[in-house]
Amino acid sequence: MPLTLADCIARDGGNASLRGLRERFAPGAPDTLYFDANSIGPMPADAPARMQAVLQQGWAEARRRGWNELDWLEQPAKLGAAIAPVIGAQAEDVRVADSTSINQYKLLRFALALQAPRRVIVVQRDVFPSNRYAAEGIAQAGGAELRFLDDIAALPAALAPGDVAVVALSHVDYRDSTRLDMASANAQVRAAGALSLWDLSHSAGAVAIALRGTDSDLAVGCGYKYLCGGPGAPAFLYVHPRHAEGAWPAVCGWMGHADTFAFEPDYRPAPGPDRFLVGTPPVLAQAAFAAAAAVWREVDPQALDAQHRSLGDTLIQLLDEQCAGFGIELASPREHARRGGHVALRFAHAAPLAQALVHHGVVVSARKPEALRFAPHPLTATHEQLWTAVARLRDLLQREAWRDPRYQQASV
Amino acid sequence: MPLTLADCIARDGGNASLRGLRERFAPGAPDTLYFDANSIGPMPADAPARMQAVLQQGWAEARRRGWNELDWLEQPAKLGAAIAPVIGAQAEDVRVADSTSINQYKLLRFALALQAPRRVIVVQRDVFPSNRYAAEGIAQAGGAELRFLDDIAALPAALAPGDVAVVALSHVDYRDSTRLDMASANAQVRAAGALSLWDLSHSAGAVAIALRGTDSDLAVGCGYKYLCGGPGAPAFLYVHPRHAEGAWPAVCGWMGHADTFAFEPDYRPAPGPDRFLVGTPPVLAQAAFAAAAAVWREVDPQALDAQHRSLGDTLIQLLDEQCAGFGIELASPREHARRGGHVALRFAHAAPLAQALVHHGVVVSARKPEALRFAPHPLTATHEQLWTAVARLRDLLQREAWRDPRYQQASV
Repeated sequence: MPLTLADCIARDGGNASLRGLRERFAPGAPDTLYFDANSIGPMPADAPARMQAVLQQGWAEARRRGWNELDWLEQPAKLGAAIAPVIGAQAEDVRVADSTSINQYKLLRFALALQAPRRVIVVQRDVFPSNRYAAEGIAQAGGAELRFLDDIAALPAALAPGDVAVVALSHVDYRDSTRLDMASANAQVRAAGALSLWDLSHSAGAVAIALRGTDSDLAVGCGYKYLCGGPGAPAFLYVHPRHAEGAWPAVCGWMGHADTFAFEPDYRPAPGPDRFLVGTPPVLAQAAFAAAAAVWREVDPQALDAQHRSLGDTLIQLLDEQCAGFGIELASPREHARRGGHVALRFAHAAPLAQALVHHGVVVSARKPEALRFAPHPLTATHEQLWTAVARLRDLLQREAWRDPRYQQASV
Repeated sequence: MPLTLADCIARDGGNASLRGLRERFAPGAPDTLYFDANSIGPMPADAPARMQAVLQQGWAEARRRGWNELDWLEQPAKLGAAIAPVIGAQAEDVRVADSTSINQYKLLRFALALQAPRRVIVVQRDVFPSNRYAAEGIAQAGGAELRFLDDIAALPAALAPGDVAVVALSHVDYRDSTRLDMASANAQVRAAGALSLWDLSHSAGAVAIALRGTDSDLAVGCGYKYLCGGPGAPAFLYVHPRHAEGAWPAVCGWMGHADTFAFEPDYRPAPGPDRFLVGTPPVLAQAAFAAAAAVWREVDPQALDAQHRSLGDTLIQLLDEQCAGFGIELASPREHARRGGHVALRFAHAAPLAQALVHHGVVVSARKPEALRFAPHPLTATHEQLWTAVARLRDLLQREAWRDPRYQQASV
């Protein structure tokens, strides 16, 4: 029996432990359904009040006393602790700072320092480009050798020479949402004497992740997607405690010094992952992220994962039942455990179709060559919204709306 | 004749071209005088409204469409262009991004790449520690050799071996505010085939700087001090156009790619200084900085410099006339051209005295071992405020308030 709207509404009543969290987020624009949590997660409703407080009481009034009297300098650790459960890390092993790209660079260089004289970075050939760029930059400067991985199945061959320092893997493919098996990859990497560095940008805050449970070495990820830290929010980094004090960080900064305000002439790395902090923290951005952190402290990761699975499975079923025969097909794995934050469809005219959907109040995105991406946030999206979105998609497909010239311009 | 309060009030009427700009900033806490622009500059009055707009219209409503429809990705260049005149740079040569420490690392590594096989970094021994830490980290990883400079007078000797790649200089000493002669240092550096890298954190936004006029090669600086970008604001970097395309950046990111949204597998550096951008820009922090940028677009750098000189000279005269005989003496150069953003006093009990002043509504700071720092912002501080501050200082000195146990605790 095909799913009905009533079925979808019934499913929205299902996940008791998350109830009430949806109201902690601000509504978006009227008549707009957001399935773009892989780009910018929803805004916690109290983010503006928190920001107003830091602007007035922090910037305008406290000024320099803010460094002492407010907790600005503690936020990288506090925010890290708040998101740690949802990525399966211990609270003390995560820090929020800088951008994903910079953290990727820092941890690649750190892994190379730990693993010297090994100097091979294995990186996926077809990964989100920023992961490659960080590695390419290091190699171009003579600091590493690159080995490209065409497919996760080729990992044993890439590791076989026994010379790999670090394997940089994106947990989830940014186009089709294929999710790698972290435990299996980590076991292979470890057996070859290499370290794993995971980019969790397209899974953190969407599905349950077990960094520690899968014995991951290093990880980074985006703060502004599913984690809802705000546009351009600082990113996170994770370092397994067995490594954190194994070498100096590549980028030595005063916030990563063992005694920042002693103003010691010589660098001494801070204990643990604090050494990966570099410059003065972004106080205003942290205030926004703190609004999301307050929500994450109340989220049961397993309930989040269950809700995410329910939304994704419902979406796939609705697409199967309502959009067959229009040349659109599922690009993501059907099995939730193999799927990341979003559900991707394959369609020859994905980009203009995405624009048509946005124009009709369904915010989705496209990625070349043919991926149409739906990324419902498990804390705010509803099954009922999915019903409406798929109905609009069906209508647009029936009308071949993607042919409309106004949907042909380039878009991010 | 000693300066009177009436003289100070009269001096506040003096700088016509800056008139009206003071009202563009929010008042601080009641009965509080801020001389801490070397820590956090004042808040533009419209920063909260700009932030509210980006939160509501950007984050809550536009979400992913913000990347396309708003100017989030253009801000690193727009903010750079706005502050370029005050540092004497061409608008297109400055970018606002990341932290000062990270930019220092990026440009040190860039200079080394340009200058290979030269690998010596000359860095001041007694500089703000973060400048040293960045260089030390590079050296520790085998990427450079360090040569410490005890005094600017020793620069010729440091350059003499002819092997120096880059000379990293802080334009202004963070303790006593001594300002280096950029033109003279640059000429020496250039004659030795080396590059200059200036840290302008304690001068940018306070005094007129001529990066291009003095033929500087590279520069970085803080966004949240005199530039008023907000606590932990992104920093700036400057690269002379003759160098900008001379090498890959050390940290290769997607925002520094020639065609970010083409998602090309291989890194290709963007033209000019855009290549020094790395990850997704901090959209919320940029919105705060944009409030300051709107003010900077209206500031005549020479008028700013004149006002800064007038405030500093007035402060020094008041201190001479009112605080002699208490064991407090001027640590900064008397000549404005040799002085940076703040005026420093030498006092054996600088730290508790600074706390006593803060307690009495005069926000200043101390740095070990004996520096008491007054950093009035030229766009908001008044000569009248200086009169009041010095009167309070005199009173505290007379009462030996620095002996009070409550002013002995450590402070940033």
